[in-house]
Amino acid sequence: MASDFRLKERLPALTARIVSTYEQVPSINHLGHCPLPNYDVVIGVIEDLKEILYPGYRRREGLHLGNVTYHVGDLVDGLHDKLTTQFGRALRHRAGKSRDCDAESVEDFEALGQAKALDFLDRIPEVRKALAYDAQAAVDGDPAVKHVDEVIFCYPGFEAVTVYRLAHALYELDVPLIPRMMTEWAHSKTGIDIHPGATIGRHFFIDHGTGVVIGQTTEIGDRVKLYQGVTLGALSFPTDGDGNLIRDHKRHPTIEDGVVIYANATILGGTTVIGHDSVVGSNVWLTRSVAPRTTVLLEKPNLRMRAEHEELEPDYNYQI
Amino acid sequence: MASDFRLKERLPALTARIVSTYEQVPSINHLGHCPLPNYDVVIGVIEDLKEILYPGYRRREGLHLGNVTYHVGDLVDGLHDKLTTQFGRALRHRAGKSRDCDAESVEDFEALGQAKALDFLDRIPEVRKALAYDAQAAVDGDPAVKHVDEVIFCYPGFEAVTVYRLAHALYELDVPLIPRMMTEWAHSKTGIDIHPGATIGRHFFIDHGTGVVIGQTTEIGDRVKLYQGVTLGALSFPTDGDGNLIRDHKRHPTIEDGVVIYANATILGGTTVIGHDSVVGSNVWLTRSVAPRTTVLLEKPNLRMRAEHEELEPDYNYQI
Amino acid sequence: MASDFRLKERLPALTARIVSTYEQVPSINHLGHCPLPNYDVVIGVIEDLKEILYPGYRRREGLHLGNVTYHVGDLVDGLHDKLTTQFGRALRHRAGKSRDCDAESVEDFEALGQAKALDFLDRIPEVRKALAYDAQAAVDGDPAVKHVDEVIFCYPGFEAVTVYRLAHALYELDVPLIPRMMTEWAHSKTGIDIHPGATIGRHFFIDHGTGVVIGQTTEIGDRVKLYQGVTLGALSFPTDGDGNLIRDHKRHPTIEDGVVIYANATILGGTTVIGHDSVVGSNVWLTRSVAPRTTVLLEKPNLRMRAEHEELEPDYNYQI
Repeated sequence: MASDFRLKERLPALTARIVSTYEQVPSINHLGHCPLPNYDVVIGVIEDLKEILYPGYRRREGLHLGNVTYHVGDLVDGLHDKLTTQFGRALRHRAGKSRDCDAESVEDFEALGQAKALDFLDRIPEVRKALAYDAQAAVDGDPAVKHVDEVIFCYPGFEAVTVYRLAHALYELDVPLIPRMMTEWAHSKTGIDIHPGATIGRHFFIDHGTGVVIGQTTEIGDRVKLYQGVTLGALSFPTDGDGNLIRDHKRHPTIEDGVVIYANATILGGTTVIGHDSVVGSNVWLTRSVAPRTTVLLEKPNLRMRAEHEELEPDYNYQI
Repeated sequence: MASDFRLKERLPALTARIVSTYEQVPSINHLGHCPLPNYDVVIGVIEDLKEILYPGYRRREGLHLGNVTYHVGDLVDGLHDKLTTQFGRALRHRAGKSRDCDAESVEDFEALGQAKALDFLDRIPEVRKALAYDAQAAVDGDPAVKHVDEVIFCYPGFEAVTVYRLAHALYELDVPLIPRMMTEWAHSKTGIDIHPGATIGRHFFIDHGTGVVIGQTTEIGDRVKLYQGVTLGALSFPTDGDGNLIRDHKRHPTIEDGVVIYANATILGGTTVIGHDSVVGSNVWLTRSVAPRTTVLLEKPNLRMRAEHEELEPDYNYQI
Repeated sequence: MASDFRLKERLPALTARIVSTYEQVPSINHLGHCPLPNYDVVIGVIEDLKEILYPGYRRREGLHLGNVTYHVGDLVDGLHDKLTTQFGRALRHRAGKSRDCDAESVEDFEALGQAKALDFLDRIPEVRKALAYDAQAAVDGDPAVKHVDEVIFCYPGFEAVTVYRLAHALYELDVPLIPRMMTEWAHSKTGIDIHPGATIGRHFFIDHGTGVVIGQTTEIGDRVKLYQGVTLGALSFPTDGDGNLIRDHKRHPTIEDGVVIYANATILGGTTVIGHDSVVGSNVWLTRSVAPRTTVLLEKPNLRMRAEHEELEPDYNYQI
């Protein structure tokens, strides 16, 4: 059996067979085009932005008001360069000019990317203020919190909202591709899937969070609280005359100020409005609007209790 | 208080106490055996395989048809060596020969590992074609997608299916242990838990995906679409005469071509068949078969609405 | 367009605007204080602890009873130092002495941290024995397992319980902040959110696991098994006279020995007790106690089946 061990004569033919699929099935490779945004750089950008938003928590110790300007200034300078390049690549990709990589063309897209990078960096103070409200919302909403520092260190809801607020700023600045890469990275880390196109007001808190889905055209007011497994989704996807999906209409719900939505509730549809200060109970499934200050509860399900040795009709025996 | 600071005289006794548990409780250590597959190498193999499947997206920029053969050939060569070693280790582990690490025995298992490594690499073109259909399924099924590149960059459903198709090829080649390590790594990144033993047809799409579970003996046809939280699971586990679980019979459902299953639906049981082109609604709980082209919906739950200040019977007050 | 490219004159003003928010919104920065626990060091500590608990699986190959003492002794020595420093920081943070960083004060908190570090290391043999039972529980409870090594390599439920048992030991030793950082790291990797304050008996298994939430004051007996999406949560949060949350009373359920809880069941409330050897079915929603040896099943939901071309009343058309 060991006689052919480590002989590699099959490898060149094998490689050639794989490479030949790049011409046969070109939809999932990116060969001979200008480069796409670089995933690792984009993720590094998120980490840099978090260091700017929450200095002293993660990367650098011993920061104080006397030295923090150097640290942050250096990060901002680096971010400017990375964002300029990555935004330029994303803009070129959307423009469909992905084969035209001569120096002049690169410069044009990078100049546009730079303008958007500066506009984005300009928004950081405002994003930071919004996130301070979100951190406070976690302290106000979770009896297990002892100190806001816990929230910043390790609350997945706060992590997801941090990345969402950054990505949403990019989405508003019409930067393609990159906002979604950022929120999907947060989804991977937290189980919370917030589309960068959603709009979310102040003082927002998601507790536990695994399984939360917030769709692209969702609108959420101020002081809203969600628990794990909540879906704010679409009912169905209308198609045009050719059967293609229509991609830009409002298809996700509106949640007004002060609403609380408990675990695993599902709210669907672009015309569904949950009125302000309403409460939606666990597991509720809603596809129509409710008035302000309403409590919506699932009627208590009928449970079957079976004591030991008691037989239930066979239909129930499998319901485990 | 600081008087005993940094004195470490307790550490040797502490270490000895820990080490003594390795003899008392040996089931969870691996001492004095031939090495197990290396987790980090296996994960690195997935990243290498993704670079071969989707060149130009992640690691290397500036690839074109003129240079991609060198890049891919180099990866294939390295993969051959890593897979040969890791498959050899996994095969030896299954054979229960984990203490017999002499050179000749290592060579025998590695030769078998090499044969499987070559067979696996041979399947990459076919896996790549299947994945091109899956990427297209995401574009066809999600109105938030603008371009297939988004899917490849950051769709968790596509990530999970990529790893599943690779792991399933290994499962079919009867490589132990490693396929499951691969799909659980994808589970960790995406929240989507697909057992490598499941069989899944062409043009498969999972949207959002967190909480999806697809069991070992599930069979899924072509053009199937799943949403977050869908479970394709087992009803109960029969045991043999001694009370031990029977481990290899079909215990998960069959989903025929063209079925759509909405969020958080649960379909259980090895004899349950969902007929082709059926639709299973959100939160539906199914343990019996349905005919082709059936729509299965949960009867709308009764909701209790409470306007502000209105009292509900006490039983309902807690349902939040 | 390219004329202003790469000019960075806006960056200093931009940086100054960001830095000015550190004084305006100081709640989410940590400037001019003694350092907080270091996140990366804490995560590294978990990896070191896993190497001690399960030697031979991940990092170091070729360990045997003749050399493992050196490997483990070296890890224990390093852990002693890291834990002493990190526990000292966490204790100082809780004491509110975060600006008093002179050498003497550092030494006092580190001395207290060292005492707790030694007490924690002392508990590892006991934690390791508990985890051997948990690994066996996975083998006993999942027909897809072939060998306990699979569980240790890649079962997310076992990963989450490993981190929980370590974090719970720290919680019992009254180490602040760090236990929660550890369990949230496991939550990020597994989708399983176990608060370090929960108490969990022997032979515990969580299968699949994504979406599981186990609250701070939950009590779980021996031989309990949970599936994905199970919530053991709170009903509502009582507030004191000033409207602030009361943070330390029992608000999560008690699950007695031998209970099995199937996927996506929700059990809420601090006075809810699930009697021993009971079974709670999928999707059940429970806020009251049940006697020992009871099976609790959801009454089978009414489903609406629609054959092709058959019309349902419009109300049902959207339920997808």
